[in-house]
Amino acid sequence: MALPQVKAFVFDVFGTVVDWRGGVTREAKPFLARYGKADATPEALADTWRSGYVPAMLKVRNGERAFAKLDVLHRENLDALLPQFVADPQAVPLDVLDELNLAWHKLDPWPDSVSGLTRLKARHIIAPLSNGNIRLMVDMAKRGGLPWDAILGAEIAQTYKPTPDVYLRAVDALMLRPEEVCMVAAHNDDLASARRCGLKTAFVARPYERGPKQTIDLKAESDWDVIVNDMNELADAVGA
Amino acid sequence: MALPQVKAFVFDVFGTVVDWRGGVTREAKPFLARYGKADATPEALADTWRSGYVPAMLKVRNGERAFAKLDVLHRENLDALLPQFVADPQAVPLDVLDELNLAWHKLDPWPDSVSGLTRLKARHIIAPLSNGNIRLMVDMAKRGGLPWDAILGAEIAQTYKPTPDVYLRAVDALMLRPEEVCMVAAHNDDLASARRCGLKTAFVARPYERGPKQTIDLKAESDWDVIVNDMNELADAVGA
Repeated sequence: MALPQVKAFVFDVFGTVVDWRGGVTREAKPFLARYGKADATPEALADTWRSGYVPAMLKVRNGERAFAKLDVLHRENLDALLPQFVADPQAVPLDVLDELNLAWHKLDPWPDSVSGLTRLKARHIIAPLSNGNIRLMVDMAKRGGLPWDAILGAEIAQTYKPTPDVYLRAVDALMLRPEEVCMVAAHNDDLASARRCGLKTAFVARPYERGPKQTIDLKAESDWDVIVNDMNELADAVGA
Repeated sequence: MALPQVKAFVFDVFGTVVDWRGGVTREAKPFLARYGKADATPEALADTWRSGYVPAMLKVRNGERAFAKLDVLHRENLDALLPQFVADPQAVPLDVLDELNLAWHKLDPWPDSVSGLTRLKARHIIAPLSNGNIRLMVDMAKRGGLPWDAILGAEIAQTYKPTPDVYLRAVDALMLRPEEVCMVAAHNDDLASARRCGLKTAFVARPYERGPKQTIDLKAESDWDVIVNDMNELADAVGA
């Protein structure tokens, strides 16, 4: 049985637990049907929106701006992409944009997520360690049935992954040693950052997270402590 | 139906959701049987331990010391009460004291708490807004089946109730207006502090929380928005 000393599993969420691309595409579709340019596709809008994620967080991480919740960063990035996708950005009511911004609160869990997390929860603490803010994580969990024990992550630390404080603040809140906490992610760089903080690591392959043309994170790129294809395999691996 | 605008209920926990006196008494009993003075009772130990709670938090609230989790304050207060209850404090192994300190993680919900919270959760966000630290709240919830959506409270705010920032930081994390959040407590002073921050208020009477000789918080002492006798009455009142 793997990781017998681990008492808590903490999870990357976007891409690892839920399908951000499918969910944002679904929500963008009626929006573009109403306001979009003729050639605008919801998949491209989702990909462009997501591409603004890392640069926006970097400004917080390097101190260029104060901490702002991911909902705020998403909303700013939505404004920035409008000219590319929308015929007349000024014609879109603000409440329509505010509603579209909540697409990130309505992402569906991958088919294995709820069952795998539920199994893990029986004998371990489970919590998101996501860059998503607390309300976003709560809405997503209530809608999708994700049975978190607590919501940890960026908002608690007031900065964003991969800054070490985000991982370490979660470990501190759990009152565990770093090696008693396992980071679960579909992203090799997230696991590398967690490992540098002393956490254990579990890679869950999601080679379709970025759509059919995904080129990164197709497989584990290091000797992570556990390497699996879904959350039920993770539960199997640790005897949950 | 009361409080139609409220989207989240946040809860005082010790005394309001769980029975601290009964739980600490239960855990103290075998400890005193082994180490206690002949006349030491577990009820008196529980009451004395709890009496150190407010003064210890005050040192954090007024800046006399940096934020420390409630588990740390409880442990210090346990050391302080040992000479009164234990024959030879030096003879008690540290791991026995560390284990006894976890009594606060093992408090039973009042009989109505789980059913009432579960009903409220269906259409509202529910979270503790307690002075207990995150791990304490998580352990208590897992043991007792409290279905929280998130763990808010003192550790997020890095100070203790009734400092306004504890209430306001929870409202901020929920991304709601204060009047969309209802504080639920068995303590009139907690509700008064929440009301000053703009939150709605629900009093749940727990006139036996401090044992048979309780003299305070026997009833609502102001026109709180909802006044009930248990969590299912609260669920009834708000149509949950």
